[in-house]
Amino acid sequence: MLFQIIDEALLCHVGFVDKGQPFVIPTLAWRIDETIFLHGSRGSRMLNVLRSGTGICVTFSLLDGLVMARSAFYHSANYLSAVVLGKARSLDSKQEKLQALEQFMERIAPRRWPQVRSPSRQELEATDVFALSLDEASVKVRAGDPGDPDKDLGFPVWAGTIPVRQVFGPMQDADNLDPAHAKPDYRSAFLDRWTER
Amino acid sequence: MLFQIIDEALLCHVGFVDKGQPFVIPTLAWRIDETIFLHGSRGSRMLNVLRSGTGICVTFSLLDGLVMARSAFYHSANYLSAVVLGKARSLDSKQEKLQALEQFMERIAPRRWPQVRSPSRQELEATDVFALSLDEASVKVRAGDPGDPDKDLGFPVWAGTIPVRQVFGPMQDADNLDPAHAKPDYRSAFLDRWTER
Repeated sequence: MLFQIIDEALLCHVGFVDKGQPFVIPTLAWRIDETIFLHGSRGSRMLNVLRSGTGICVTFSLLDGLVMARSAFYHSANYLSAVVLGKARSLDSKQEKLQALEQFMERIAPRRWPQVRSPSRQELEATDVFALSLDEASVKVRAGDPGDPDKDLGFPVWAGTIPVRQVFGPMQDADNLDPAHAKPDYRSAFLDRWTER
Repeated sequence: MLFQIIDEALLCHVGFVDKGQPFVIPTLAWRIDETIFLHGSRGSRMLNVLRSGTGICVTFSLLDGLVMARSAFYHSANYLSAVVLGKARSLDSKQEKLQALEQFMERIAPRRWPQVRSPSRQELEATDVFALSLDEASVKVRAGDPGDPDKDLGFPVWAGTIPVRQVFGPMQDADNLDPAHAKPDYRSAFLDRWTER
């Protein structure tokens, strides 16, 4: 369940403390086995704080539905969330960074990595990649129908759920795309959340 | 733009510090004018920390697309985010809490509030509602095509974006719903993000 939440969410929110003030920054993250990875431009505030070795919190959330009960109080939300605590480790070897970044692209766009221009030495140096172990992770899930107590079941109002989904696709060509380069098929990377609208 | 991000996101991530450790907790939030509101069960860790009057960070994020460039380095994400810093104020009067909660339901399910059972005195006391001013809020947006430098434009690979959307609906009846209570029409609350799949 932990792996599924992280893999489906793609987006996470990184919490860290800088001079006593908490910050929450959204970023994409990916997982390899029992480790999650974050990346960004060297010198950003978030990555500077991560590099300092302080404790962080990385939270993945999938809002799954709005739960409409017979009483105001029992309204709720269906969701899955994973909260990961720990200290991030900076990947310092060029090889380790490249492997992690390749896995990230493979997660989103299978077989794209060998097709794009590889990072130059300067680009790779300008990119920080951090690893965070899933050793200290907790999962919370709320699913299913509203939990109205029996005494409220006769209340004359509709009850149920409004599903919420994060959906992907369809792919849109860049304005300056050479039409010789047809769309690849990345649907397989997005489980059942690809759309052909 | 700030209002639009908050209203569309619905979900936010609340960052706070408890005994030196940052935590990031997902929760639904709503906005009335220049104030956002959070709520939850009295006694939860997050709400206890909020009540202490410490500085928090509330972040709203809309992941809008995955940006596929000709080089690995220029891959990016389109998104809109709002980061709100400040101290939350607990709503202590029964009237103020009820008004805020009614606005929350009105945001998701227009005209539902008068149809459901109102909170009892005990239920209202068990619910904490907090207000946070938008005085200290910042917005970040990345939109549009990949930013490939000219030298990469001839690279023989597809480039463009993979849109990402949070979609709502269609409504699902609770298993124990009395079929006499037909689905209301809440589509108007979800801008263009309602789906009829």
